[in-house]
Amino acid sequence: MIENQFTKLFNVEYPIIQAPMAGGITTNSLVSAVSNAGGLGMIGAGYMSPEQLRSQVKELKLQTENFGVNLFVPNDFSLVEHKIQAANEALVSVQEKYKLEKNTSIPTKESFLENYFEQIKVVVEEKIPVCSFTFGVPTKSIMNDLKRAGISTVGTATTVQEAIHIEQLGMDAVVAQGYEAGGHRGSFLKDKQRSIGVMSLVPQIVDHVSIPVIAAGGIMDGRGLAASLCLGAKAVQMGTAFLVTEESGANHIHKEAILQAVEEEIVETRAFSGKYAQGIRNQYIDIMMEFEEDLPEFPIQNALTQPMRKAAAKNKDKGYMSLWAGQSPRLAKYQTVKKLIGDTIFEATKLIK
Amino acid sequence: MIENQFTKLFNVEYPIIQAPMAGGITTNSLVSAVSNAGGLGMIGAGYMSPEQLRSQVKELKLQTENFGVNLFVPNDFSLVEHKIQAANEALVSVQEKYKLEKNTSIPTKESFLENYFEQIKVVVEEKIPVCSFTFGVPTKSIMNDLKRAGISTVGTATTVQEAIHIEQLGMDAVVAQGYEAGGHRGSFLKDKQRSIGVMSLVPQIVDHVSIPVIAAGGIMDGRGLAASLCLGAKAVQMGTAFLVTEESGANHIHKEAILQAVEEEIVETRAFSGKYAQGIRNQYIDIMMEFEEDLPEFPIQNALTQPMRKAAAKNKDKGYMSLWAGQSPRLAKYQTVKKLIGDTIFEATKLIK
Repeated sequence: MIENQFTKLFNVEYPIIQAPMAGGITTNSLVSAVSNAGGLGMIGAGYMSPEQLRSQVKELKLQTENFGVNLFVPNDFSLVEHKIQAANEALVSVQEKYKLEKNTSIPTKESFLENYFEQIKVVVEEKIPVCSFTFGVPTKSIMNDLKRAGISTVGTATTVQEAIHIEQLGMDAVVAQGYEAGGHRGSFLKDKQRSIGVMSLVPQIVDHVSIPVIAAGGIMDGRGLAASLCLGAKAVQMGTAFLVTEESGANHIHKEAILQAVEEEIVETRAFSGKYAQGIRNQYIDIMMEFEEDLPEFPIQNALTQPMRKAAAKNKDKGYMSLWAGQSPRLAKYQTVKKLIGDTIFEATKLIK
Repeated sequence: MIENQFTKLFNVEYPIIQAPMAGGITTNSLVSAVSNAGGLGMIGAGYMSPEQLRSQVKELKLQTENFGVNLFVPNDFSLVEHKIQAANEALVSVQEKYKLEKNTSIPTKESFLENYFEQIKVVVEEKIPVCSFTFGVPTKSIMNDLKRAGISTVGTATTVQEAIHIEQLGMDAVVAQGYEAGGHRGSFLKDKQRSIGVMSLVPQIVDHVSIPVIAAGGIMDGRGLAASLCLGAKAVQMGTAFLVTEESGANHIHKEAILQAVEEEIVETRAFSGKYAQGIRNQYIDIMMEFEEDLPEFPIQNALTQPMRKAAAKNKDKGYMSLWAGQSPRLAKYQTVKKLIGDTIFEATKLIK
């Protein structure tokens, strides 16, 4: 089970990727611990400036040779003034609570795209071994730049069609992101696509592509790894399980919330960022429920809620933080990365041939 | 892998249950083929009168000794006149299309309960080996009657809490019905519960009960069986895979629709029965989308749409039939039950220890 198409291609001992969770979780302490324990550590660089990314990568290279970076592919979005105003009005009570100013630095399409192109430049110049993408796929010209630099590429698919699209573009592997997955849903061909569960998504994608498929969603231990390999995946991408480890940079409140949560509390919401993402239900999500459909698109809504999320984290107020988590919180354990990876491999090896 | 807690308790060769799909699919030709191929065939008796059930069981006993029956536990419901009127108005265009009369035989709470009690009587008197329940659990007094008659009982859970509830009642096994599953969702402790994917639901339930857990949702072949056993399930319940077999009593149009469908077409709707159920999106579901939240409860809506569903089936019009299916239609194959079970076991045995 241990050596396969994925481990060879990505030069790792074990078929485990640490999901590239954006927003301060994937510190070098987490990423290097994963890579040094035989998995593939990933920097969730979606929200990073090129300078932040370059500086983290330079430091990380002192700790490990093999790691990856994940980027958000910019979507087209429109600035609908009345939606922004409505979203700001919905946030008034929260702004008053924390004595916050309205966030008026709304991202423009140009700045959004420019940041992405600069991130790509860092990836190429620093010859980062693996680059994965969420919310879309890179252009052919970017693909060529990455290939020329010897960088392995990974796409994120939520349907069979998206996986086929990723393979046809020449990417090296595809993450099959199922309904159970925490955080942002990576759909890109259709916006209002209904999510597909891992049990259905993985084998249907496996039957339609020849690049390695990486299962993601709800996988927390050796049972999940073994099950994914049975479904035809060549590796797994685990998020929540790594988020709660000792080495993770996630806020302590976030880790505690997951460790105490049950599966029924996990919901999907657009209220934090404008894109659908899965996490623990809290006061903010409940308040925003009625506005859900009318909120501005990503990344506008994300910018509007940023001051609130920062203030809430500072005040240890989990009612207004984005507590991303997958659907298996009962399986989360506070432990070291080494123990998580070691136990996962040990348990999976006992189950499958 | 083949012999375990489940196969011993349910006296079967293989850990495979054919899902008890109600509404004419589970003919004796299907049920006996499953049981005689080493699985557990089930009659979906939810909509049957006691007489229909008794007559099918008497005939089935000539073909196999081991089989089960599934019953719908009656929910409380209210007759909200304006909702019934609104639902009937929404159906007018369809009624005109097929020159149908409005269905005025709305079930009463009394008739609904009486039918259920009479079904239980048949199960006890005919000493049907296995009785499973959907939409709730039997009362303690019914449980006692079933136990005294030596009948094994199975509950349906969509959350950890529901599984614990089922175990505490003294049932022998629990179906963990995940998000991927086709047909009706069996939730009973909370009505508006968000579904949990199989990858998350099964191990979390396994960690909280000691009775055998039966995985359900999206499982179509040996990969799905092997994966479920890795997650800690002791058996699987497969619906869509059996629905499309040669022996199944499903309408030919329904089988064809599944064989041609892709995963993106599978949606959840209350429009046919008043309870959430999963199937292939069609014209009727699209028309009813806007009324979804305001439709009468089960079994009222089910009664209101029955004439339409019958007429549509007769006219081979898949736009107005309830085309229940799980999220893995691309894995469906038109084949014999024997081949389906044989291949599933062969493939799973190659994958797991």
